[in-house]
Amino acid sequence: MKKYNVSILGASGYTGGELIRFLYQHPYVNITHVTASKHAGKQLAEVFPHLQKHTHLKLYNLDISNIPNDIDVVFAALPHGASAELIKDIYEKDIKIIDLGADFRLNEGNYKDWYGNHPCVDMLENAVYGIPELYKKEISDAKLIANPGCYPTSAILPLAPLLKNNHIKDDNIIIDSKSGASGAGRSPSIDLHFCEVNEGFKAYKVGQHRHTPEIEQQISDYVGKEIKVTFTPHLVPIDRGILSTIYVNLKEDLSTDDIINILEDFYKEAHFIRIHPKQEYPNTSYVKGSNFCNIGVYSNKKSGTAILVSAIDNLVKGASGQAIQNMNIMLDLPEFTGINTLPIYP
Amino acid sequence: MKKYNVSILGASGYTGGELIRFLYQHPYVNITHVTASKHAGKQLAEVFPHLQKHTHLKLYNLDISNIPNDIDVVFAALPHGASAELIKDIYEKDIKIIDLGADFRLNEGNYKDWYGNHPCVDMLENAVYGIPELYKKEISDAKLIANPGCYPTSAILPLAPLLKNNHIKDDNIIIDSKSGASGAGRSPSIDLHFCEVNEGFKAYKVGQHRHTPEIEQQISDYVGKEIKVTFTPHLVPIDRGILSTIYVNLKEDLSTDDIINILEDFYKEAHFIRIHPKQEYPNTSYVKGSNFCNIGVYSNKKSGTAILVSAIDNLVKGASGQAIQNMNIMLDLPEFTGINTLPIYP
Amino acid sequence: MKKYNVSILGASGYTGGELIRFLYQHPYVNITHVTASKHAGKQLAEVFPHLQKHTHLKLYNLDISNIPNDIDVVFAALPHGASAELIKDIYEKDIKIIDLGADFRLNEGNYKDWYGNHPCVDMLENAVYGIPELYKKEISDAKLIANPGCYPTSAILPLAPLLKNNHIKDDNIIIDSKSGASGAGRSPSIDLHFCEVNEGFKAYKVGQHRHTPEIEQQISDYVGKEIKVTFTPHLVPIDRGILSTIYVNLKEDLSTDDIINILEDFYKEAHFIRIHPKQEYPNTSYVKGSNFCNIGVYSNKKSGTAILVSAIDNLVKGASGQAIQNMNIMLDLPEFTGINTLPIYP
Amino acid sequence: MKKYNVSILGASGYTGGELIRFLYQHPYVNITHVTASKHAGKQLAEVFPHLQKHTHLKLYNLDISNIPNDIDVVFAALPHGASAELIKDIYEKDIKIIDLGADFRLNEGNYKDWYGNHPCVDMLENAVYGIPELYKKEISDAKLIANPGCYPTSAILPLAPLLKNNHIKDDNIIIDSKSGASGAGRSPSIDLHFCEVNEGFKAYKVGQHRHTPEIEQQISDYVGKEIKVTFTPHLVPIDRGILSTIYVNLKEDLSTDDIINILEDFYKEAHFIRIHPKQEYPNTSYVKGSNFCNIGVYSNKKSGTAILVSAIDNLVKGASGQAIQNMNIMLDLPEFTGINTLPIYP
Repeated sequence: MKKYNVSILGASGYTGGELIRFLYQHPYVNITHVTASKHAGKQLAEVFPHLQKHTHLKLYNLDISNIPNDIDVVFAALPHGASAELIKDIYEKDIKIIDLGADFRLNEGNYKDWYGNHPCVDMLENAVYGIPELYKKEISDAKLIANPGCYPTSAILPLAPLLKNNHIKDDNIIIDSKSGASGAGRSPSIDLHFCEVNEGFKAYKVGQHRHTPEIEQQISDYVGKEIKVTFTPHLVPIDRGILSTIYVNLKEDLSTDDIINILEDFYKEAHFIRIHPKQEYPNTSYVKGSNFCNIGVYSNKKSGTAILVSAIDNLVKGASGQAIQNMNIMLDLPEFTGINTLPIYP
Repeated sequence: MKKYNVSILGASGYTGGELIRFLYQHPYVNITHVTASKHAGKQLAEVFPHLQKHTHLKLYNLDISNIPNDIDVVFAALPHGASAELIKDIYEKDIKIIDLGADFRLNEGNYKDWYGNHPCVDMLENAVYGIPELYKKEISDAKLIANPGCYPTSAILPLAPLLKNNHIKDDNIIIDSKSGASGAGRSPSIDLHFCEVNEGFKAYKVGQHRHTPEIEQQISDYVGKEIKVTFTPHLVPIDRGILSTIYVNLKEDLSTDDIINILEDFYKEAHFIRIHPKQEYPNTSYVKGSNFCNIGVYSNKKSGTAILVSAIDNLVKGASGQAIQNMNIMLDLPEFTGINTLPIYP
Repeated sequence: MKKYNVSILGASGYTGGELIRFLYQHPYVNITHVTASKHAGKQLAEVFPHLQKHTHLKLYNLDISNIPNDIDVVFAALPHGASAELIKDIYEKDIKIIDLGADFRLNEGNYKDWYGNHPCVDMLENAVYGIPELYKKEISDAKLIANPGCYPTSAILPLAPLLKNNHIKDDNIIIDSKSGASGAGRSPSIDLHFCEVNEGFKAYKVGQHRHTPEIEQQISDYVGKEIKVTFTPHLVPIDRGILSTIYVNLKEDLSTDDIINILEDFYKEAHFIRIHPKQEYPNTSYVKGSNFCNIGVYSNKKSGTAILVSAIDNLVKGASGQAIQNMNIMLDLPEFTGINTLPIYP
Repeated sequence: MKKYNVSILGASGYTGGELIRFLYQHPYVNITHVTASKHAGKQLAEVFPHLQKHTHLKLYNLDISNIPNDIDVVFAALPHGASAELIKDIYEKDIKIIDLGADFRLNEGNYKDWYGNHPCVDMLENAVYGIPELYKKEISDAKLIANPGCYPTSAILPLAPLLKNNHIKDDNIIIDSKSGASGAGRSPSIDLHFCEVNEGFKAYKVGQHRHTPEIEQQISDYVGKEIKVTFTPHLVPIDRGILSTIYVNLKEDLSTDDIINILEDFYKEAHFIRIHPKQEYPNTSYVKGSNFCNIGVYSNKKSGTAILVSAIDNLVKGASGQAIQNMNIMLDLPEFTGINTLPIYP
């Protein structure tokens, strides 16, 4: 049985840890190289004590010269800006790359507006936006995947079928999202200090979150016309999970059942999408630790509006699980290989 | 110094407990009578061990004959339907009543649609809806207060100034609210079992929550025209706090600063309303344990929309604190008497 | 590839759910029958919405006549007393049984003292106490496993090597244990209501918990002399995890390193035991969702005492994971089959 | 009515915030000066948004020259070592000082062993250890209070009556303590990052926590003979609260009732000590936000051992509440002035 050699760049954060959790049990993968510049030289199990006894991998500096020649796939779980140059070099070596950062998700203009000058503009056209439920064919042919942001995944999956089929109006789409704290990463800061998060709930970066242009550009590209959204992120004092409550105006008279049918039909081949029956709605705990995206629907005929509620695990379908799903497709494996675990409840 | 005798009907739940916490330290109040039918005969400190050594009050059955004659004020913290008849009898004895339940918040039609037949329709016109920041004069003259629901308080306070002054459109007002678990009361159920709530986040009763008609009717009455809203409640795994994120369409070109000024001006006499400076937003932890309502604002000129974010402690400004604020006004005391405590942080 | 048919009695609780999570991914098992009397007739996914789309199993009444004839293994996750008679009938049909309840863990005298009359005393001698690290041989020959309690597992694993080899004194063994709320099951009660548990920490059943005789009897049986312990359980506001801090008096001069070596040596073949290096101690989050038991050690030479700290996931190594480990041994499979997942972090 | 002017050194941490919460409502105190070197120049409400609208105090650098001349009482909530020199200067100005840090709690030898050389050894004899229930007289005469550590408060209060009256053996006293995260302060670190704490439970600094010598020295001083203890701290994922489970060996045959009586008698004048009836035990949630210390008792006659369980709010009775209690006594006010609030539940 052929095993692919995998490298994880930025293995000491939460998405890195989650890649390791799944890839260790992936039947066709060996993790042979991991980096974490600020922990270079340490054992991986020193920064992730829960991995003790399972791994003797050592953490390396982030440096192209450290990447072994026999690597087949690189996952980059790095802060934005940190990976672009390096990814260019890796790309040229004909290694498949899945970038979990933001560097290849936006076009040049959007990137400049929200992040600054892009470090390697010419690479942008090579990247495929990695939502497998929308771009399976493109992903299977790609060498470079821009793995979607967590909030955008939770917003685009319920919206795509309705926008693509022209069921909802383009304006006044409101995405009210709530995320667990692991979405903010593992670096200490006062905003993520335990007592500052626990027993509180807040909105943040109102009107100014960098996932806004990602949602707008990607959904616009997918449906072929410009879509604007209002997006508000909130912080929930839980480890994992994003729930997005999405408000749309219907173009036609669609009941809850109608919308459920549209979604069911659109996602009938999608292994990881689960549509709730009428009057049932997602809870982030229904998807915790798994690669599922759950979606619930409510249509208010009187006002001509509908509410879509989606839930994902931000570290899985919102990051590492989707990354592996993309890898599976690139390697022509069944897309659920190694990530077909049930949610952990409670 | 005159002390008023107070009775609490339904003293064994969380709003009852919170009434006790504040009233014990109120300089002009003696709690002389408490009821809790299912715990009748027990000491209050048996159902609330945190009160041990502070009280020798005994819990009585809910029965008009048990209410002492010298009671000046009755707080009813009872399930809907349970209090209406009793309140009628108390009302006739010329005792001031503050009802924390839903029985006197809706007009006959709305009540029927959402709860069933009203037990004493003729009482409805006597009740004043107890948001002191909007109805101080009416409250001071009232004998019966319909103490507002927690979600409606969080929605009406930020909306009232903008709707009253005609700054926002009537349609497409979206209220996305998130509440801590104490809002659901103290009765055990699988939905409120620790492991079912902890580490999850969900929407519930989408499009069907009973606070929808309360918000619509009360804001309509206040501004003098019919307003419809879309309201979605969510459950946050914290004890206390409601954060409401409210999306509105502006009628005119108003910047964030403009809206802040409108709110500041409207609430310039309001002791418990705190408007955040630009680019700062509320966290439920900023109001925990206190009677404050914090409000933050974001205006998006490009889309002509604005976002209002409000935070209250659902058990205080959303229930018992506001009830005491109403009592103070009815008794001609400074409205903050006994409830002017700072939030507890963390 | 031979697949074994498995029945789960009491599938709607947390240990039932955890059996399902692991067994669905077990390569040699089909779950073909599940019961939950109070939910009989419902789909399994109705009581566990996180399983939606993964199962069309229907829940049956608990009744011997409902158990299919081709069942190879029965897991009983039932309240004590509920399973004994039924287990007797199943036992006679030559089906392997793993009982996750308390009915077969104690001898007749202890059972009577702590639970009342035993429903089928004659079955007691057939049951093997299922800690695979201590009784692998006996388990492989058994037809009926008394799957250990969660607290006892966390206490016996660190103590067994030191008591067996006579390194610590028999008296004054103190076990101070802290458990997440899932250990108390899924039935609603005021004690497990979200707001009653969250943001609190308490000791409970001090000196009177039914796991005390289980710890004493089982550790006594294992080492061959009577051992008494002081055991205090506490409730931690988390979903999963038990941490036990165990205080012992040393018989001889043993350093921290010495004790670590003794444990390492004793458990050198044990796949699921992980001994921490000196000055590192377990966190329940290092084992969450996994079948590991982590152990840390501190020896105070001056006082001749040592502290052992153990951590398990109460639903996995403390219940369902260990049950499957026992099943694997009974079926002559590698003991980690289907349960060799990494912890989920965070 | 005479008002005392108060200065808080180190006002931006959690104990600083808690001093402010209580002192703002203290009838005889004005907070007129606050410092926080790393936030010097900012408004207090910038570092504590929950205080918005309540204070226009500005934060100053920590510098003797910044302390106004009319200050009557200084609270120092500073890291150890940071305050000693400054406190010496303040002391000489005849201002009353309550030091919430560790600098004046230990004798010279212990300080050296656990912290290093003491910055002003000659001041040590002037400091009174501030447990009002044990040293009320000395506190009323003191100019400098060493406010006790949170863990030591939770351990000494239940132990003192039994040790003083010679009811328990000196050796083998085991203190197993569990603390909420606010006890570790407000400075960001990976160990206190939300996801690293939430949903975990761990022991830390096993056998090596600096509160061990404080407990040993202070309890030894109080009872007049050398006492050694085994002390293990644990981290609970809650904001506030310490629960200590204490195991002792009895010198004589004492029932649970006997011990309860001894404690009740010893603390009959103590406003803030609450002894639980037999078979009831403390929960940290029973004291949250208040200055109470709850104590529960279990005696096991067979083994001659007893278990004492205590609960305090680490930020109140374990820090700022006790500090104000000490101030009240120094100022000859009723000791509960300004801190007689009920616990906040839930």
